[in-house]
Amino acid sequence: MKISASGIWSSIQKIRQKAPVVHNITNYVVMNNSANALLAIGASPVMAHAEEEVEDMVNIAGALVINIGTLSPHWIRAMLRAVYQAKKMNVPIVLDPVGAGATAYRTSTARELIQEVPPAVIRGNASEIMALLKEDAKTKGVESTTSSHTAVDAARQLNKIYGSVICVSGETDYIIDGSDVTKVMNGHPMMTKVTGMGCIATAICGAFAAVNQKFAEATAQGMAVMGIVGEIAVENAPGPGSLQIHFLDTLYRLSEDNINRYLKIEG
Amino acid sequence: MKISASGIWSSIQKIRQKAPVVHNITNYVVMNNSANALLAIGASPVMAHAEEEVEDMVNIAGALVINIGTLSPHWIRAMLRAVYQAKKMNVPIVLDPVGAGATAYRTSTARELIQEVPPAVIRGNASEIMALLKEDAKTKGVESTTSSHTAVDAARQLNKIYGSVICVSGETDYIIDGSDVTKVMNGHPMMTKVTGMGCIATAICGAFAAVNQKFAEATAQGMAVMGIVGEIAVENAPGPGSLQIHFLDTLYRLSEDNINRYLKIEG
Amino acid sequence: MKISASGIWSSIQKIRQKAPVVHNITNYVVMNNSANALLAIGASPVMAHAEEEVEDMVNIAGALVINIGTLSPHWIRAMLRAVYQAKKMNVPIVLDPVGAGATAYRTSTARELIQEVPPAVIRGNASEIMALLKEDAKTKGVESTTSSHTAVDAARQLNKIYGSVICVSGETDYIIDGSDVTKVMNGHPMMTKVTGMGCIATAICGAFAAVNQKFAEATAQGMAVMGIVGEIAVENAPGPGSLQIHFLDTLYRLSEDNINRYLKIEG
Repeated sequence: MKISASGIWSSIQKIRQKAPVVHNITNYVVMNNSANALLAIGASPVMAHAEEEVEDMVNIAGALVINIGTLSPHWIRAMLRAVYQAKKMNVPIVLDPVGAGATAYRTSTARELIQEVPPAVIRGNASEIMALLKEDAKTKGVESTTSSHTAVDAARQLNKIYGSVICVSGETDYIIDGSDVTKVMNGHPMMTKVTGMGCIATAICGAFAAVNQKFAEATAQGMAVMGIVGEIAVENAPGPGSLQIHFLDTLYRLSEDNINRYLKIEG
Repeated sequence: MKISASGIWSSIQKIRQKAPVVHNITNYVVMNNSANALLAIGASPVMAHAEEEVEDMVNIAGALVINIGTLSPHWIRAMLRAVYQAKKMNVPIVLDPVGAGATAYRTSTARELIQEVPPAVIRGNASEIMALLKEDAKTKGVESTTSSHTAVDAARQLNKIYGSVICVSGETDYIIDGSDVTKVMNGHPMMTKVTGMGCIATAICGAFAAVNQKFAEATAQGMAVMGIVGEIAVENAPGPGSLQIHFLDTLYRLSEDNINRYLKIEG
Repeated sequence: MKISASGIWSSIQKIRQKAPVVHNITNYVVMNNSANALLAIGASPVMAHAEEEVEDMVNIAGALVINIGTLSPHWIRAMLRAVYQAKKMNVPIVLDPVGAGATAYRTSTARELIQEVPPAVIRGNASEIMALLKEDAKTKGVESTTSSHTAVDAARQLNKIYGSVICVSGETDYIIDGSDVTKVMNGHPMMTKVTGMGCIATAICGAFAAVNQKFAEATAQGMAVMGIVGEIAVENAPGPGSLQIHFLDTLYRLSEDNINRYLKIEG
């Protein structure tokens, strides 16, 4: 799979033109940031988690982003209703199994969601991806205990079983789809000091999946944009507070030239 | 109705002096931003949604802000208890029907709240305001599908039925009360790229309603302040990240001179 | 008790090295800010409130932070399960009784939590601390109606009854433990114009308690860091928006020299 700067730029232009509704059922911690990142890139975010309305929201959505970062039983029921409806309406699902491996509740919820309706894309850190497959993988709260390449085998197996594109994020992001492995080397360590950057990445992948049906390509494009924007934002950021602000400003103003100059990808 | 810079300034000074408690039952996405905007203008925000305590909070509040941006059944029950108590205590209610028209659940909830206890003020975008009246109005998630003047007729009818001041926000904000129509032309398009700016506007209108019993005037004052602060904030904001920061800083430092220079209003 | 700059610095280095998991069951308004502050100082925040998983999270935590800022019945049940597990696992609990005294629901919930498992540390404003002891203490929403020294007697009594270190925050922070009274004079009034600064202080105290078993010392260290970082952040902040950003940047870059130069403490 060849990911080009011009392909990324073309997807961004589609997002800006169509402003697809991205329906998020996501955690409390990052709702605001995810919505702002989606607005900055040109999408139309909506947050809705009530069982009574998730189907209606899916019906007008270009993508459904499910993030298990702060769970409750009635949220899980709503997530299930939403993924069933997404399947029916052919709306791509992007799943973020936040904290899978840290508690049995998260691991089993993530697995149930995947088994019921395999998502178009699953994006997680190495610990989370491994926990989807293996009982003994451990996650440190919501942080990975290992580097991303460690989870490539687990990602391949998950991809084989469910057909979902698997993205293992970390210093290098691996996007796995069949025999294709794409590596995104963009990003900056300071991004790990901002809560929810992974969740935002998942939401951004949702925006790309809404305009690009080649989901492995869409995911690689989304992850590259996250990393590029993060790198540019860090340049003027003395710390993680200003990084957040520059991140949104940079995402809003992102140009094809930025992508050309910063893109570091192999695939 | 004549909205003057000096009248706006007088209300702001009252907010700063009295620091009225503004009780918000609002959505998860904007809670933090609404609280910070209310603090910046000088009010005392409180967020509380449990059925067990909303009445106690209403009892100490100068205004009650109800925002249906992220609904659940138990939140709706709490909203109803809060509006009944507000009626009893003569606390003005400001309602934001976020996403009415996007899902049947939101439309019916907003209508139920209005029918049970007509609010002092209803503020929404054009799609939301029309959805309160008509079955076939459609909202794109939480964004309007049409410009604000389109909803002026619906606003008039709602005002006639319920007596509530209706504010249709957009590029021009229309504040409707009986035969009075006030137009606020302040604001900047970049504000639409920050999530929850509408919700913040509603919260700010709550602060003004807490110190100014002429609710149409209070609403126009609040909307003018939102727009003025947004315009000033954008002047130094390369994007929606820094806009948020400058917005709070500007609101905190707002002077009568700022209002005099920027106010664009017809009424 | 003698709190030194070098002792504070030593605790910060331990936080940065160990990156302890700080498990927060906290309110919706500040979740994001608390997580970001914990990341900025070097801890590993996790937010989890489901009854189904709080025990698993406590098991991997270095500290448990309970904040009652936005309550619901099922959250209270989860808080109770978490504190029982924390007692069993010897994980220090830091409690923030946000809004105790404003509603009966908050007051009784805070008291129940304290009576069931006395926390290592309780941090609140003067009104909140007094409300834990006396029926007639009143809180203005989530703001104190009186200055911190007024609550020192109540703090002493609470400390005597429950053994918990009591921190009454305000212009001067008082940390009470037996006959020890430590006064932290750092901080800046503009911090009161940012929502959740008290909640963030509690979370930061959790990070210190995770690496320093002398909980009175850990609390004084945490409160001093909050105040110092706030003072430095205000220096370049025209208002509460930029204060938030500089706060995170400063906390991330905090040096021993900063602490030496700014620390204002008596004990």
